[in-house]
Amino acid sequence: MARKVREAERALPYTYDRGKEIALGADGTPTSSLDKLAEDAILEVVMERDLPFNILSEEAGMINRGKDRTLVIDPIDGTQNAIMGVPFYSVSLALGTKSMKDVEVALVQNLVTGDTYYAEKGMGAYLNGARIRVRSCSPQDIMFLMYMGLYSAPETFQIMKRARRSRALGCASLEMCLVAEGRADAYYINCDVYEKAIRVVDIAASALVLREAGGEIVSLDGRSLDMGFNLKERSNYLAYGDEKIRKVVM
Amino acid sequence: MARKVREAERALPYTYDRGKEIALGADGTPTSSLDKLAEDAILEVVMERDLPFNILSEEAGMINRGKDRTLVIDPIDGTQNAIMGVPFYSVSLALGTKSMKDVEVALVQNLVTGDTYYAEKGMGAYLNGARIRVRSCSPQDIMFLMYMGLYSAPETFQIMKRARRSRALGCASLEMCLVAEGRADAYYINCDVYEKAIRVVDIAASALVLREAGGEIVSLDGRSLDMGFNLKERSNYLAYGDEKIRKVVM
Repeated sequence: MARKVREAERALPYTYDRGKEIALGADGTPTSSLDKLAEDAILEVVMERDLPFNILSEEAGMINRGKDRTLVIDPIDGTQNAIMGVPFYSVSLALGTKSMKDVEVALVQNLVTGDTYYAEKGMGAYLNGARIRVRSCSPQDIMFLMYMGLYSAPETFQIMKRARRSRALGCASLEMCLVAEGRADAYYINCDVYEKAIRVVDIAASALVLREAGGEIVSLDGRSLDMGFNLKERSNYLAYGDEKIRKVVM
Repeated sequence: MARKVREAERALPYTYDRGKEIALGADGTPTSSLDKLAEDAILEVVMERDLPFNILSEEAGMINRGKDRTLVIDPIDGTQNAIMGVPFYSVSLALGTKSMKDVEVALVQNLVTGDTYYAEKGMGAYLNGARIRVRSCSPQDIMFLMYMGLYSAPETFQIMKRARRSRALGCASLEMCLVAEGRADAYYINCDVYEKAIRVVDIAASALVLREAGGEIVSLDGRSLDMGFNLKERSNYLAYGDEKIRKVVM
């Protein structure tokens, strides 16, 4: 499925308007032409092969096919990067039954470089086939990845100042995979508008990758994060590799 | 020269330690093994062909070869991205005599994608051979690129909140090229520590690309930015495509 998305996206002409808002998605936000193209590529595989899953997607919502398991997809995470020409956006796929915590397999692929993060519950996390693990943090050398934008809560700036370096890369799933890979120490999102926080489709896959690499994701009151398979629930959170990061942030 | 840098970097094995600090550069900051490798690739071309330029580089400082013109180079902008595996870092090359404003030709290349920005004074700016121009800003849809980090002045967060979207991508030269290309509206850097602000090597090339694309770079007191060819001078600044952005920021 990821390959189909990548092929479809790579084949677009330079002049294609990736950002054209063509509809309102099931989650209430506008669907861009690129999101739709990517979602269609995935749905086609599921339908053609009659795969035994329901589907939960940002744009199409829940497609109940009467199955036990649900494929949770974010066809494009980082749509604005794709529009801007920043080579940092992904497709996310996760397979589970009811919530983030029961996801069995997960895949996140950088659609430009092709780098593929994969995890299987209890079996570890992998980048392009090689095992990955979080790093332990050096307090003097912390790299934070963060959501920074119109809806950032003011604490965001204070917390940013506790790290040596920070980035706001605009693609939560890949940012969490960088933490899983031990390239960065944390990803933090704190929106002061509930409707702008993260949904399960955005992070169902990257959460398993991070947890299987030895990291954890907690809500901002410190509880291990779980989110049901629906588009209503939103959450702010901290994703980290090393427990020590909790004290730095909270 | 850019091709030589890209080839050298692409050929590195996955296990190569790009971030190893191997020396102190002429600018007083540590030189990583990757910076050194890239600088050597450029110096080799200049020396082998005995090109008629002096060289000003982040790591080697000013190499006075008794010539009229100086090649101002930033072998790698975005070293931390290269270390983290974020595909957004560049090589910058600018040729001029005394300061940023007399740069005649400039080139910035994304070392992962190979995308190449080029400008010649009075002749326009180009991406992969096609003319680029800044965009006019839509006040409701502003995209800011910013420096966000340990040394960000507090105003940074307030200014960020005036845009619909923001990113901190960690590579000033490519971020300015995104403004030149009309993909983003501004790049803003405001460090409260002088020694952490930008040097001429970082932006000599991207400044010409942006100006030739119709944009401007101003210091934070609103004057058109110029910087002499040396490593001592530092500056904060706002780079924008559309004049309207000045009122949004200042």
